[in-house]
Parts: sequence; structure tokens; C-alpha cells
Amino acid sequence: MPVDRLLHHFPLDPFSRQVRLALGEKRLPFREAVVRYWEQPEELLRLNPSGLPPVLVESGPEGVLVLCESRAILDRLESVETGARLLAEEPLERAETLRLVQWFDRKFDSDVNGLLLHEKMEKRLLGLGAPELALLRRGREALRAHLGYLDRLAGERDWLAGGRLSWADFAAAAHLSVVDYVGEAPWDDFPAAKTWYARIKSRPAFRPLLADRQPGLPPAAHYDDLDF
Amino acid sequence: MPVDRLLHHFPLDPFSRQVRLALGEKRLPFREAVVRYWEQPEELLRLNPSGLPPVLVESGPEGVLVLCESRAILDRLESVETGARLLAEEPLERAETLRLVQWFDRKFDSDVNGLLLHEKMEKRLLGLGAPELALLRRGREALRAHLGYLDRLAGERDWLAGGRLSWADFAAAAHLSVVDYVGEAPWDDFPAAKTWYARIKSRPAFRPLLADRQPGLPPAAHYDDLDF
Repeated sequence: MPVDRLLHHFPLDPFSRQVRLALGEKRLPFREAVVRYWEQPEELLRLNPSGLPPVLVESGPEGVLVLCESRAILDRLESVETGARLLAEEPLERAETLRLVQWFDRKFDSDVNGLLLHEKMEKRLLGLGAPELALLRRGREALRAHLGYLDRLAGERDWLAGGRLSWADFAAAAHLSVVDYVGEAPWDDFPAAKTWYARIKSRPAFRPLLADRQPGLPPAAHYDDLDF
Repeated sequence: MPVDRLLHHFPLDPFSRQVRLALGEKRLPFREAVVRYWEQPEELLRLNPSGLPPVLVESGPEGVLVLCESRAILDRLESVETGARLLAEEPLERAETLRLVQWFDRKFDSDVNGLLLHEKMEKRLLGLGAPELALLRRGREALRAHLGYLDRLAGERDWLAGGRLSWADFAAAAHLSVVDYVGEAPWDDFPAAKTWYARIKSRPAFRPLLADRQPGLPPAAHYDDLDF
């Protein structure tokens, strides 16, 4: 009996996107259930008491394993032997990967998503009214600082954490691709970051993300353009 | 040549505390440098561009390894062979551990620390004026919800993630002990959570945390009392 995987996720959630990219890169098939997590659906709360996506339910010969949120899911997928390794064994590159994942999941999430995505996306989904311009401006400034840093890294290395594609690239791409969906990523001012993003964007694992469409919130015109 | 470890940390930072608890539990000696991270000290920024503690610098026969923030540091310490394992190999307990670490580092941090610790501690440290009562009240309500959940877990299990002491216990204890320092943890209303906290608090690894004193911000009277 093969392992069945069901991913509960929200397409424009950066944490869900990291997991979809890792599943895609490892060529692990999975079924999907889209959750509108802000409505606190009962099944999601039953699986994950925090009420946050993503949740991956693995059913196999050894029973059912419920994996809640990106940290547990990525760790589990890394233990599966098929496909590319996304977390190096070598200490320096491993430490760098985990530093950058935390950078995006904590600092970028707080500096940028908490302002820019909240004002432009969450308020729309939750019916909370128009974005506040002062908060948008602060979010845009923080985004430029982050892109400046990414630009330097991308100019010096093959991939963000060093020589191999890793969780760090997927964390960065997951967060930035949602910012890009809402039309807020000024790629042309950060050429090395743009080249890095073009390489990530053209990977087969990224294709499903480029097909995401949130009703009532159409993407920026260049969102799914590989030659943006 | 033995490994030299220097931990850059702030005593009342919950992420720094998780690392100190893991180092203590594994009986790994380390030197300390206290960083007032909100002043963005140059050395911290040089080590970790995000400017956030903790940072652990390991110097050994193989060179220097700079480990930034709790995710990279805990992962590295777990690969060191001495001392107790704090992350199970067994899939269910491993997934549960990582779920709970993310719960505290993301949800608790946002629901509780962002309000209660910001108003009662960070504003004091940063000279931002008096706490706002409405925000304190919201933080206290969120804290009670979190303690209710912890109380249920602690009533059903030996340790938070199952049968063994793990990162999950240290994540919970690190966050809650700072809330306790500022006198905001209503332990008596959550007896199973209180019993769990008393067990954690009496471990040798916890002793240095109970000795922490932040100038200008004295701890609650019962903070270092093992029989609180």
C-alpha cells in the first residue's frame, strides 16, 4: 500500500507554498484540500488546534501521521528517501539554510507580510475595508530592504544558502511569490534577486503556484510570466 | 582541542532561553555575551544580519561555525552526541514536538508576546512609555487560552509532546517563563500546567534562567521560587 498524502493548504499562504514546493521538488504526489483558514473550519481545527495551514495527513501501512505546519512537514519530507535533499548534511550550509528559513518565516513575515499582505490581501479576504496607505508604505520600505539583502546573497552564491537548492530558496520564493501575486515586488530594481527568482519560477515544482487564482483577488499581470 | 561555544543572547528573550535550556540539559558548557539587541549592536549584526538573538559561535578543530537563531542552533545541538536527545526519532512524537515548537514560536509569540511582553517589557526597555491597558487585556485573554490548552496537554501526557522531555517543553517553558518574570502567568487557575512548569523549573538546566535579573525590571516575587 503506497502512502497517501492529503495537504490542507491555502494557495496564497507563504507557509503552505513552501510545503507545496518541497513536495513538487521531491516529486511526491499529493491530494489537496483548500482551507479558508480565517473562517476557522472545523476540520482544520480538529487536525491542527492552532487553526493554521498547512497540514499534511500521511496515511500508509504504518498508520496515519498528521503533520502540522511547515516545520514539521518539511522535516518529515526530508526523511523520505526519494528525490532531492533540500537540507544539507554539511554543517555550514545546513546552518545557513536554517538561518534563512527563520529569516523569512519570522523577520520577513513580521516586517513585510504583517503590513503589505495584511493590508492588500487579508483585509480583502476578511472584508476589513481598504488598505491604510501609511502601513502599505512601511511594508514597501521593509520589502526593499529585504530584496536588497536577497540581491546581495543571490549575486554571491549559486543558491541562497550556498551550492544547492534548499529550504532557504523555497522559503524566500514562497514569501516573495505571494508579494508578487499582489503586484508589490519591484524586481527590476534588484537584478540578481530577479535572476534567482526567474530560475526558481521556471522549475516544474513552481508551476502549480503560478496557476493559483484567488476569487476576487486577481494576480498582477506578470505573475505567471516566466519572462517577467 | 575542545569546542568553544560563545552564546550571544538576551536573558529575557524566549528564543534565547530555549537555547540556554537545551545547552544546559545536554551539559554543554558555554560562554555568554549579553546583547541589548534593540540597540542593534554592531557585533550582533555582523554575526546575524537579522539583528536577532540568539547566536551561537562554535569554534573547534574544524573551524568556526556561526549559528543564527533558535532553529539552526537547536538543530546543531541535537547533532552533538552528548547528553539527552530532545527531538525524538519516532515519527509521531517528532511531528508533535515540531508542531508545538512552531505553536509557541509563531502563535504564542504573536498572540501573547506581541501584546503582553511588548507592553510590559519591551516598552520599558525601549523607553516607549506606559503600557496600553486595552492591549494588555487582549494579551491576557490570549494567554489564558494558551494556558488552557497547555493544561489539557499536561494533564494527558508525561511531557508536552509525549513520553520524553523535548524541544516542545523548552519552547513552552522559555516563552512562559518570561511572561512569569513580568508577573503575568496565572498558574493557580491551570493546575496541570502549573505542575508541569514546576517540574521544568526544578531541572538544573533552568537554574541560570531563575537567576536572570534585568536592571530596571525586577521579576515577580515568586519568579525564582520552586514552590510557587
